[in-house]
Amino acid sequence: MNHRSPVFRLAASFFVFVLVALGLPGSARAFVKDVANFTLKNGMQVVVIPDHRAPVVTHMVWYKVGAADEPVGQAGIAHFLEHLMFKGTPANPNGAFSKYVASVGGQENAFTSSDYTAYFQRVAKEHLADMMRLEADRMENLVLTKDVVDPERDVIMEERRSRTDNNPSAQLSEALEATLWFEHPYGRPVIGWMNEMEKLSLEDAISYYDRYYTPNNAILIVAGDVNADEVKQLAEETYGKLERRAEPPPRLRPEEPVHRTHRMVRLESPLVTQPSLTRSYVVPSYTTADRKGLAGEAEALDLFAELLAGGSTSALYQKLVVEEKVAVSIGGYYRGTALDDGELVFFATPAPETTLEQLEAAIDREMAAFLKSEITEETLARVKRSVIATSVYAQDSQQTLARVFGTALTTGRSVEDVLGWTDRIRAVTADQILSVGLKYLDKNQSATGYLLPAPEASRS
Amino acid sequence: MNHRSPVFRLAASFFVFVLVALGLPGSARAFVKDVANFTLKNGMQVVVIPDHRAPVVTHMVWYKVGAADEPVGQAGIAHFLEHLMFKGTPANPNGAFSKYVASVGGQENAFTSSDYTAYFQRVAKEHLADMMRLEADRMENLVLTKDVVDPERDVIMEERRSRTDNNPSAQLSEALEATLWFEHPYGRPVIGWMNEMEKLSLEDAISYYDRYYTPNNAILIVAGDVNADEVKQLAEETYGKLERRAEPPPRLRPEEPVHRTHRMVRLESPLVTQPSLTRSYVVPSYTTADRKGLAGEAEALDLFAELLAGGSTSALYQKLVVEEKVAVSIGGYYRGTALDDGELVFFATPAPETTLEQLEAAIDREMAAFLKSEITEETLARVKRSVIATSVYAQDSQQTLARVFGTALTTGRSVEDVLGWTDRIRAVTADQILSVGLKYLDKNQSATGYLLPAPEASRS
Repeated sequence: MNHRSPVFRLAASFFVFVLVALGLPGSARAFVKDVANFTLKNGMQVVVIPDHRAPVVTHMVWYKVGAADEPVGQAGIAHFLEHLMFKGTPANPNGAFSKYVASVGGQENAFTSSDYTAYFQRVAKEHLADMMRLEADRMENLVLTKDVVDPERDVIMEERRSRTDNNPSAQLSEALEATLWFEHPYGRPVIGWMNEMEKLSLEDAISYYDRYYTPNNAILIVAGDVNADEVKQLAEETYGKLERRAEPPPRLRPEEPVHRTHRMVRLESPLVTQPSLTRSYVVPSYTTADRKGLAGEAEALDLFAELLAGGSTSALYQKLVVEEKVAVSIGGYYRGTALDDGELVFFATPAPETTLEQLEAAIDREMAAFLKSEITEETLARVKRSVIATSVYAQDSQQTLARVFGTALTTGRSVEDVLGWTDRIRAVTADQILSVGLKYLDKNQSATGYLLPAPEASRS
Repeated sequence: MNHRSPVFRLAASFFVFVLVALGLPGSARAFVKDVANFTLKNGMQVVVIPDHRAPVVTHMVWYKVGAADEPVGQAGIAHFLEHLMFKGTPANPNGAFSKYVASVGGQENAFTSSDYTAYFQRVAKEHLADMMRLEADRMENLVLTKDVVDPERDVIMEERRSRTDNNPSAQLSEALEATLWFEHPYGRPVIGWMNEMEKLSLEDAISYYDRYYTPNNAILIVAGDVNADEVKQLAEETYGKLERRAEPPPRLRPEEPVHRTHRMVRLESPLVTQPSLTRSYVVPSYTTADRKGLAGEAEALDLFAELLAGGSTSALYQKLVVEEKVAVSIGGYYRGTALDDGELVFFATPAPETTLEQLEAAIDREMAAFLKSEITEETLARVKRSVIATSVYAQDSQQTLARVFGTALTTGRSVEDVLGWTDRIRAVTADQILSVGLKYLDKNQSATGYLLPAPEASRS
């Protein structure tokens, strides 16, 4: 069903790229005024983002739980719950919520990542109260029975088959993440491993729902043609009546050991027509940079990724696509929004006469050259403008705006962090950018994936 | 301290090789008669292996717990407990057990693997009763306090530093296992990851000890100049008086997802003088072959490994070392003794003018050629004689003999399985050997490691 959207860490590169770009904790200053932030008595956080351009609202509930919080052996349960939430409650059975949204011409969606699970609707403002009533209802009263769970398990397994198992690029991404992370569950795909998905039981679903779907683990975000007082009153009448059903455990995931090897993953398949290369480095996220006292490093990484590989003006693109013509495309981004560490990701497609080995050697060489180069004041100013502008443009979408706050708040950041981002980006120096590059572009902290056409259906 | 021996999955290749060869569930028929096997009332299993060649006994206690059973985030706790067991009890404080063994001219040792933890002493037969008394005492009465635990944590951390962190070959092995296994804890080093070891607490140690060090989770093995009745009486007077302190949980580890990529790990270090290559494939162990209804596959894998890469008569050695001279050494073995899946492991050192890439391509080519070749009756007979003889020779050591039963019983096998091994090896056909080769020599089920000298102290 189309309202069950991205399983983030899973999706193909392009898709991830788009989402990450949108998900950055960008400055909301250009549009956003008077963001309100308060907490209900039962511990549910509320963020209100006034946006009076049209009489619509985006209503979202974010849970501070994702695939990286799943019990061992139950990979996929977070995303499974996302599906089950569309089933029904005694008061609103058989997908009544979705039917209602459709009947008033609204849109709805849900998504699961490693760090969060979120549900949202975009409707005309007069339907906001109903959205809150229905969302609050399924937070507490979801019906989970064998009749509900068993057929939906087939649905998620089929989703995995079509999105991942039949897609060499997705298979490679999955294996790349699994080799990049030895201990941390970011190495586990959000959709789950098939062998664990097929064993997900009714009891697993109930236990996960009871543990995590409780108001003190949730964040309500309302963006749109509303003010904080209205939202507060409605929230108290709906979500405010829910009981704290559980105290979710601290989100302490296993940490990575020191890595001293470069890892490679290689997939050859007859389904691949165009070879490509991906390289991921583990680096601090916005959250872990703060946690480790590395203030400013995440902002510098954002600019570093943009300068080195963000778009057609970047150093790698100019050198390897435009000048040397060894690649037909190249790009990269910083995945900085995460409760635990983030990633620097690069991807490239070789020119027809270039092998992946040659392309990789050229990328390594140009990365090293970039780290020895100078960043002029003019370049620095340009890249800051570009990064800030991307964030500002993204806010033109009410949904994206709400999402920026949702991802921040479920990954250990605050509303203030989001609002202060532009100023922190402006303060980054050229030295800081090259320093984080030198510090983190260490091949032993990375994994490289090769995706190759298979000359024949051979197994070795 | 030298009685704290191998952390198996960790050790450098050569070492693993030796242990695995000894640890094979070899036939014990040549020497072993009248192996007795019974269970005490508290659930402790007992195996008695009469060996009257000399008036000595080997006394072992094996616990059905190892590093693959550790709680998430506590990598290293199994091996840590092994260390702590040498500290003391109220009745025998300050290493009194070890002092006693030394005073009577005995030997002692202990070892931890992914699947088991074992303690043993070799003493003159008149000291057997004391060994049993002392071992039973520390199964129930180990003193675990902050004073004991804190300094010993420094010892295991130092052990990791010297054995792994300063050893590129060990670092590579560790990373290779971690990329070979995505979900199964066989990907985690037995000694632990430093970042988790440094957090192992007194509470962790107590909880692990209380959960697993209980007679119903232990196996007593006595080999030597004894008979079953004597041992039974002594065991009832010592171990038989211990209470079942806990019911250890079922040993259900996360299973691997389907793998569709070949993984590579590369480590360059100035400490490496000689490049080398290792390739590991996940294959059934003796235990999982049975569990999955693949009778005979483990035995066929044992012979397959021997034919392809076991010693200087093997196909790979003859072709690549003797004939083409692209390698100066090459070898391989089947790690078939495991509660969950096993591995087929190959390793090679290139000739001076050969790169690892060239050597790997040559190995792939020769593996493919071997799978298309024919195994003559004569070759088959020779390799069976050789594999059986290795196992028979190993039994010349009383300790190895006891160890064969200990590894079998802690990894889901029985005394009968061990005793019947020779006959099952004799029954394997040439077709079965080539079939398991074709089935399991799939590069997507493998990881390859390159160990290389670093030309300079460079980071990328």
